[in-house]
Amino acid sequence: MTRLACAEFAPVVGDPDGNRARVVEWIARARACGADLAVLPELATSGYVFADEAEAQAAAMPADDATLAAWADAAGETTVVVGFCELGGDGGLYNSAAVLDDGRVRAVYRKTHLWDRERLVFRPGEEPAPVVDVSAGRIGVLICYDLEFPEMPRSLALRGAELLVAPVNWPVVPRPDGERPPEVVQAMAAARTNRVFVAVCDRGGIERGQEWTRGTVVIDESGWVVAGGPAVTGEARLVVADVVLSRARDKSISEYNDVIADRRPDLYR
Amino acid sequence: MTRLACAEFAPVVGDPDGNRARVVEWIARARACGADLAVLPELATSGYVFADEAEAQAAAMPADDATLAAWADAAGETTVVVGFCELGGDGGLYNSAAVLDDGRVRAVYRKTHLWDRERLVFRPGEEPAPVVDVSAGRIGVLICYDLEFPEMPRSLALRGAELLVAPVNWPVVPRPDGERPPEVVQAMAAARTNRVFVAVCDRGGIERGQEWTRGTVVIDESGWVVAGGPAVTGEARLVVADVVLSRARDKSISEYNDVIADRRPDLYR
Repeated sequence: MTRLACAEFAPVVGDPDGNRARVVEWIARARACGADLAVLPELATSGYVFADEAEAQAAAMPADDATLAAWADAAGETTVVVGFCELGGDGGLYNSAAVLDDGRVRAVYRKTHLWDRERLVFRPGEEPAPVVDVSAGRIGVLICYDLEFPEMPRSLALRGAELLVAPVNWPVVPRPDGERPPEVVQAMAAARTNRVFVAVCDRGGIERGQEWTRGTVVIDESGWVVAGGPAVTGEARLVVADVVLSRARDKSISEYNDVIADRRPDLYR
Repeated sequence: MTRLACAEFAPVVGDPDGNRARVVEWIARARACGADLAVLPELATSGYVFADEAEAQAAAMPADDATLAAWADAAGETTVVVGFCELGGDGGLYNSAAVLDDGRVRAVYRKTHLWDRERLVFRPGEEPAPVVDVSAGRIGVLICYDLEFPEMPRSLALRGAELLVAPVNWPVVPRPDGERPPEVVQAMAAARTNRVFVAVCDRGGIERGQEWTRGTVVIDESGWVVAGGPAVTGEARLVVADVVLSRARDKSISEYNDVIADRRPDLYR
């Protein structure tokens, strides 16, 4: 059994020191509840709605900054996936996520698909999303809008990911009454299509007028929501779910079908 | 405006003559309601739960059979997509769908991904799913389990399909209370991901103990259900929706984003 904890808190733009303290605090909470793996929001260190590039620059840190190593240490046995504003060695800014596991930084992923005005600030990642063997199992990492490209979950599943982990900042978008956020529908489909678990950590707060979906959700390998869903009260929450990740290794769905083996890439053109 | 009509009726296995009469009857109903495009179920001519291959063989017809041409003629100005049990020139059986438009057979598609025991009877198609310009607009055709491979909707959208049309026979599968059929969730995601409309025609009746989802549904280009959903009473129904297919040509979803142009195929590996 693997305990997942998604820390849907509210980073504050323009307050990088405060955000680092918040990250430490939420890692501690996840650890205290016995989480094997904790997910924190996209851009947890910087906030999202930058006034300009300088504001993002002021909150950025390199992937080899001592901060990430210190968080990995503080996480103990808990694996952490956290979004941060990365200052690249090339001087560019990236919307990145770090995988902290076994006391060190195991991987850093730079968001491939940039949303809206992000491209005025960030450069897109130029490497495939990573699959990492952590203590809890084999995880794949995506960030926010990446999840809306089914090629991304598929690629991670083909490389053996049992759990897709996605720090997000989902701005509220219109949806009919009674419907889930559309991004959750897409995540449910990604889970079922690939028979993988999905853990999405959204954020709270209102930033420069921007409201967030607060759509943090954990989805099982059949595509059903097992924890989370849109929050209606409060500023922050920890969404916790216990899952059996090894179930994602079985891709069979009938006596004669397997969702991976049944693919026909020669005909997908 | 395009009027879509999905004829969710109950073909009867072992009664090919009766099924042909039912197809004619439902084409007439769709035409009478002013449908620009009618969708009929998968294997509408044969039923689904075959006792053996011989039973499928007895219901099969070649794509150039006079029957399909006669239906195209009877459909008048209404485009029809209908599933049928095809006898191939190679002697093999195929789970196929015909596109009838402008008084003739415009395309025949052989199902790529065979579900469960279908593979004991049918050969899989060996050609990509077709995109066809019909009077209502540009349509792509899939059959049932094909829809669960996101590569398929994506491929059709990349080739300009505005509407995905899918004859299906969805056997009932478990789902939590209050949830939509999982295949509908996947179809909603396919629609939103690609910004295309989706029209799925399921079937009714109980065949050799097999119950059907009766999940006929029309989904708009934002991924929301506009007509249909699981039927709870009756044996058959016509699900009708008026849609503006040209909206599927606009793939932009923010000032800086386009769901097709934003793809990074170089990184999907």
